Amino acid sequence: MKTIKTQVGIIGAGPAGLTLAHWLKKHGIEAVIIEHRSREYIQGRVRAGLLEQNTVDILKKLGLADRLVKEGQEHHGVYLNFDGKRVRVPFGQLTGGRNITIYGQQEVVKDLTEAWLAQSGQLLFEAPALELEGIETDSPKIHFEHNGEKGIVECDFIAACDGFHGLGRKSMPKDAYKEYSVTYPFSWLGILAHVAPSSEELIYAYHERGFALHSLRSEKVSRLYIQVENDDHVDNWSDEQIWEELSVRLGTEGWKLNSGPIFERSITPMRSYFIDNMQHGRLFLAGDAAHIVPPTGGKGLNLAVADVKHLVDGFRDFYEKASMQVLDNYSTIALKRIWRAQDFSNFMTTLFHKQYEHGSFHYQLQKAKFDYIQLSEAYATTIAENYVGLPFESFDALD
Amino acid sequence: MKTIKTQVGIIGAGPAGLTLAHWLKKHGIEAVIIEHRSREYIQGRVRAGLLEQNTVDILKKLGLADRLVKEGQEHHGVYLNFDGKRVRVPFGQLTGGRNITIYGQQEVVKDLTEAWLAQSGQLLFEAPALELEGIETDSPKIHFEHNGEKGIVECDFIAACDGFHGLGRKSMPKDAYKEYSVTYPFSWLGILAHVAPSSEELIYAYHERGFALHSLRSEKVSRLYIQVENDDHVDNWSDEQIWEELSVRLGTEGWKLNSGPIFERSITPMRSYFIDNMQHGRLFLAGDAAHIVPPTGGKGLNLAVADVKHLVDGFRDFYEKASMQVLDNYSTIALKRIWRAQDFSNFMTTLFHKQYEHGSFHYQLQKAKFDYIQLSEAYATTIAENYVGLPFESFDALD
Repeated sequence: MKTIKTQVGIIGAGPAGLTLAHWLKKHGIEAVIIEHRSREYIQGRVRAGLLEQNTVDILKKLGLADRLVKEGQEHHGVYLNFDGKRVRVPFGQLTGGRNITIYGQQEVVKDLTEAWLAQSGQLLFEAPALELEGIETDSPKIHFEHNGEKGIVECDFIAACDGFHGLGRKSMPKDAYKEYSVTYPFSWLGILAHVAPSSEELIYAYHERGFALHSLRSEKVSRLYIQVENDDHVDNWSDEQIWEELSVRLGTEGWKLNSGPIFERSITPMRSYFIDNMQHGRLFLAGDAAHIVPPTGGKGLNLAVADVKHLVDGFRDFYEKASMQVLDNYSTIALKRIWRAQDFSNFMTTLFHKQYEHGSFHYQLQKAKFDYIQLSEAYATTIAENYVGLPFESFDALD
Repeated sequence: MKTIKTQVGIIGAGPAGLTLAHWLKKHGIEAVIIEHRSREYIQGRVRAGLLEQNTVDILKKLGLADRLVKEGQEHHGVYLNFDGKRVRVPFGQLTGGRNITIYGQQEVVKDLTEAWLAQSGQLLFEAPALELEGIETDSPKIHFEHNGEKGIVECDFIAACDGFHGLGRKSMPKDAYKEYSVTYPFSWLGILAHVAPSSEELIYAYHERGFALHSLRSEKVSRLYIQVENDDHVDNWSDEQIWEELSVRLGTEGWKLNSGPIFERSITPMRSYFIDNMQHGRLFLAGDAAHIVPPTGGKGLNLAVADVKHLVDGFRDFYEKASMQVLDNYSTIALKRIWRAQDFSNFMTTLFHKQYEHGSFHYQLQKAKFDYIQLSEAYATTIAENYVGLPFESFDALD
């Protein structure tokens, strides 16, 4: 039986867990991470790639952004397409210089893992958490398994950054939270292709035939998506059909979509999920463990990092001032931003997906919103400021 | 058989028809109005009472705003309530000085009728239009009845400002337009009461028990509404119950609702309706003949006046330059604003009515939007600018 003593026991080496560990260390607070999967697995897992201004700023402040700054692509705007018409929402101009950076989540995970291990940070891979003990006491424990051996993390606090299916949320008493969720009646067929992006910035498109998104990973790799039915399957789609559909849906006058070899394809369902309480006793949830947003708008990773910001505020308050005041308010504070992100993700999803008959009343409302972006700087600003992420202090306006 | 010759034959002496007649006269274009109802009826009909900045500016420019300026109440903001919390959206501050004026629609009708008759303008009351003839020719005719006698208005153009149930839209070929509509699953129980308003500005409220609105008519008359079921009936409600419900739904700390004798009460269903083409040959529709919005946001009368603005542009183009170019584009131009108003009316309706279970995912999105108003000047601005009405030139941004 291996016993590890630390101050904050972290479950999950995703962006939330890794950022939390680094940030705590910066303030002299000890943390240990246990991760169910292998290092290869988490560094290879294809996920989001859109970093808000806040997320970039945090990684820079933690000294973890060297490669991100070098290889990431800062985007100063986004293209929005509707029925073949394309407009651009400029970010910096509408938000006082805030922007987004395209940099794959697995690259963030790679950078943070490497830096953590280089500082002799404790991180066990292939170490599934089995049970949480004593979360209502001052000395909770994480029971885990590693190399066929049982182990325990003895700590002051447990941070469950272990994703939607993780042990964290399941260890909360059922009556400690209420859950909210919606499953959308469509999914995304996403591809990665060896082809130079056809646009320097992302393109979100509504089309009679459904939503499409042009994104990118690098100068040589494009990431593209189309809306499909929930019961669709990748095998139903030939490469030619995918490119044809992307070309039609993303199309606008004078623009051409480059195609190339597709090397990854998958179908993702679209869901909104969150709980109204992310903590119980000494257990705190962050990231996907507490909320899922549909990928439209790219909020998932950024919300996880925002949760971590509030957790760090709380742990600092505890270790520096022996106060539980900030930690006690963790859920309340984090949820303000989560609700905003849920609403924005729902807004972007509803605006650009085909959900109602093309030409129906609700289609006309979608079109009216798209038109409004073109004629109101205030409206365009709401999209820009949500997209790049509202500054943390914005939420102080809500009591 | 009475025959009246004129340039523009107008059906309906509501705000649209009367404003059109006055505005055309200002530019030396002749118009005649025939109105189905009596003068007493149209001047007593209780309708909206919220005039956008554009509407006030137009009435001033036409010299029809003397009493409006004296008796109307300019409002520089609106209160929004959610679960008992109240915030204020200031109009002028967010829109560069644009505001709304509270002045009953029947007062506008009274002023415009009086001024029209004082200038010897032709206006027949109790003269129902029976049939439109030759709308695809250059000399259309309105057949009507007056004092038991048949008559004809022979004109260059027919402007149907005759409301949702009027002859105008019914005279368009069925395949000339497509219609869009939604009926909301709730209605408004509205009252007029002899009591000083409890708030200087309007209050829109979401409450677990449903929507409520505090409006006003004068210093001594309040106008209030509560959301009820579509199959509800005024007889189901005692005065005490109505005041109790208003008090709870509109309530916020430190505020008290004044009550008084109720002298008018009615239930109004909530509907959005519009058609995608408002003209055929020499027939042009304006106002409720072409679109209905739910009353949340007060867009009905203002949209009618905006339609008239575009019609006047068209008639001037025709009579001053012998061109049909502007008239040919009437629908296209008018619809940009109509779609905007439909979307805003739907937004306000959806934001403040109880449509989903209190505490559900969709309730949380409503709450997230309300919270967003408090933390984003851009978002508050979108509400303010739609509420006071976007300037006509804003829509030039849409091609």
